[in-house]
Amino acid sequence: MGVNVAVVGVTGAVGIEILRVLEKRDFPVDELRPLASSRSAGKEVVFRGKEIRIRELTQDSFEGMNIAFFSAGGDISREFVPYAIEKNCVVVDNTSAFRMDDDVPLVVPEVNANKIAGHNGVIANPNCSTIQLVLVLKPIHDAAKIKRVVVSTYQAVSGAGLKAMDELKKETEYVLSNEDEYDRSIFPHQIAFNVLPQIPQDDAFLQNGYTSEEMKMINETKKIMDDDSLRITTTTVRVPVFRGHSESVNIETKEKISADETRDLLSKAEGIVVLDDTSRQLYPLATEAAGKDETFVGRIREDDSVENGLNLWIVSDNLLKGAALNAVQIAEKLL
Amino acid sequence: MGVNVAVVGVTGAVGIEILRVLEKRDFPVDELRPLASSRSAGKEVVFRGKEIRIRELTQDSFEGMNIAFFSAGGDISREFVPYAIEKNCVVVDNTSAFRMDDDVPLVVPEVNANKIAGHNGVIANPNCSTIQLVLVLKPIHDAAKIKRVVVSTYQAVSGAGLKAMDELKKETEYVLSNEDEYDRSIFPHQIAFNVLPQIPQDDAFLQNGYTSEEMKMINETKKIMDDDSLRITTTTVRVPVFRGHSESVNIETKEKISADETRDLLSKAEGIVVLDDTSRQLYPLATEAAGKDETFVGRIREDDSVENGLNLWIVSDNLLKGAALNAVQIAEKLL
Repeated sequence: MGVNVAVVGVTGAVGIEILRVLEKRDFPVDELRPLASSRSAGKEVVFRGKEIRIRELTQDSFEGMNIAFFSAGGDISREFVPYAIEKNCVVVDNTSAFRMDDDVPLVVPEVNANKIAGHNGVIANPNCSTIQLVLVLKPIHDAAKIKRVVVSTYQAVSGAGLKAMDELKKETEYVLSNEDEYDRSIFPHQIAFNVLPQIPQDDAFLQNGYTSEEMKMINETKKIMDDDSLRITTTTVRVPVFRGHSESVNIETKEKISADETRDLLSKAEGIVVLDDTSRQLYPLATEAAGKDETFVGRIREDDSVENGLNLWIVSDNLLKGAALNAVQIAEKLL
Repeated sequence: MGVNVAVVGVTGAVGIEILRVLEKRDFPVDELRPLASSRSAGKEVVFRGKEIRIRELTQDSFEGMNIAFFSAGGDISREFVPYAIEKNCVVVDNTSAFRMDDDVPLVVPEVNANKIAGHNGVIANPNCSTIQLVLVLKPIHDAAKIKRVVVSTYQAVSGAGLKAMDELKKETEYVLSNEDEYDRSIFPHQIAFNVLPQIPQDDAFLQNGYTSEEMKMINETKKIMDDDSLRITTTTVRVPVFRGHSESVNIETKEKISADETRDLLSKAEGIVVLDDTSRQLYPLATEAAGKDETFVGRIREDDSVENGLNLWIVSDNLLKGAALNAVQIAEKLL
C-alpha cells in the first residue's frame, strides 16, 4: 500500500530534486500531486515516465493526500501548511517557517529520527548548511562532547534557487566577454568571480550584525543536537559555485579526540564518506559532491591553538542531503 | 638623489604590480633594471613611459643596484639573493625563502616597521594572506590582547600567478560551453565554479595535515606580531576569484572589546578602511578591493560563543597590499 504525496513548489530547485529522489528511492507513491503557483499551473512534470499536470496551490490542494513536501518559501508554508494539517496530511516543510517552534520536530534522520514520532502534523527540514554540519558533529559530540564550533561556509548559489543559478551563469558570461555590467535581480552584488559574506539576499541582517542564515545555523544546530550548552558561531558566505556547500569547521571538544580517531569514527557513521588522503590531494569538493547523497569530510587535522581542537572540511549537495533527500528520508521514517 | 632598483621576476603577476606601484608612488628610481628568466630576456617593460629591455637574471645582475625586489619563487631567491647582498644591494624578498630566518625581518610597515633597521641585507615580505590579517589584528591586539584566532580564507587565483588566472578564465569558458574537461596545468582539481581547500598546488601538505600556506599564516603572524603566545589556526581555500583575498576571522581577546569599539579602532588605523553598514548591504568584496591599496574590514560583530569573541571579514588585493605595495612600502622605509 502506498501513500498520496503532494509536492508544493514542484518547479523550484528543491521541488525538482524531490521528484527525482522519490523516484530513485522507490518511495511508495500512489498518487503524486505536483503543486505550484498559478504561473506554473497547467505545465507538466514527468514522474516515473508519466506526465502529470501541475495544479495551482489552493486551500483545497491537500484533499486525499497523506504527505506534503513544502519548498516554496516561508510565506507559502505559513499560509498553506494549516490547510494540509486540516486534511490529516503530514507536512515535511523545507522552509524556515516552523523550524524553531517548540512543538515542531527539526530532523536529520541520522541524528534525531526519534523526534519524528512526536510531530503534530509538521516536521521541519533544517537549513541546508545546518544539515551537513550536524550530520558530522553528532558522532564527534557523542564520542568527545563538543564545547564550541566555529564555522565559515562556502555556499553554492543553488541555495537561492534556479534563478540564482542562471544569474551566476549569465553574469559570468558577461564578465568574461567584458560586456556592460549584468543587470542582476537576485544577488545584491556581483557573484561571478566574487564571494559575498551575505546569505540570504533580502532581509538578511539582524540587530546583532549576524545574517538570518548565520542565526539559523546556530539555533537549528542547538535544537537538532538537543544541547543548548553547545557554543557555536558562524560566518555564511556565498561563492560562485552552482551546487554543493563547503564548510570550514573548527571544533573544540571536552575530551581529547585525535584526527585518526575522528577519521575512524566518521568513516563508520551513516551518510558520511571520509575523503582525506592529502598524499593524493584527496579531499571533498563541491563539484564532486554535486548529485551525490552522502556528506563528505576531509582535511581532518588537530588544531593545537586550543586544548582539544580539530579542523574539518565538510561538503554536501545542498539540494540533496541539504534539502530534498533529507526531506524524503524524514518521510520514509514517517511511514 | 634616487636609487637604482632591480626587479626580479618582472614579468610575473607581482613583478608587473611592483613596476606600477613604483611609478604610482613616485619611488625615487634612478635606474630600473628589469630581470627575468632567459625566456623573457630581450622583451621590454614600460616604466615611466620608457621601454626598458628585460635582462636575464645572472650572478652579475646586481652590480650598481641599491635595492632589489625578488618575486620569482623561493628557489630563485635562495640562489640569487646572496649575489645581491654581495653587491650591497638590499633585497626585499617576496618569497617564503627567508621569512622565518631569525636574522631576517618579516615586515608589514604599519605593524613592525621598527624591525627594518636590523636587517642584514634581506627584508622579507610576508605571505599575502598573512599581511591583510596582521594589519587588522595589530590594533585589536594592542587594545585588547588577542588570545586566539581562527581563520578561513577565500583566496584569489592570482596568488598562484598569471597562468592560474588564465586557467580560471579558460576552464570557466569550457564549463559554460559544456566542452570536454579543460586540460589543467596549474590547479590539482577544477577551480571553475568550485572551491579547493588546498593552497599551494604543489608540495602542499605537511605531516600534521596542514598545508604550507596554512603554516605560513600561523608562523608568520606570530613572528610579525612578535608574540609566540598567540594561538592561531587556519584553513586556506582557493576560490574562483581573479583578484582579492577574503578572510573570515574569529578572534578571542583577553580584554572585552565591543563591535563598536573595534569598528572605531580600525577606522583610525593606517591602511585600513572599515566598510560595515549592513543596512546598506555594505561589506568588503574582492571585486571592489581589487586594484585598491587599502585593506577592507566589515561584518564586525560580537561572538557570544566565547567570553570575548569577535567575527570579522577582511578583504585586500593580494597583489597590492598582499605583495607589491607592501614590498615597496618596505623599500620606502629603507630609504
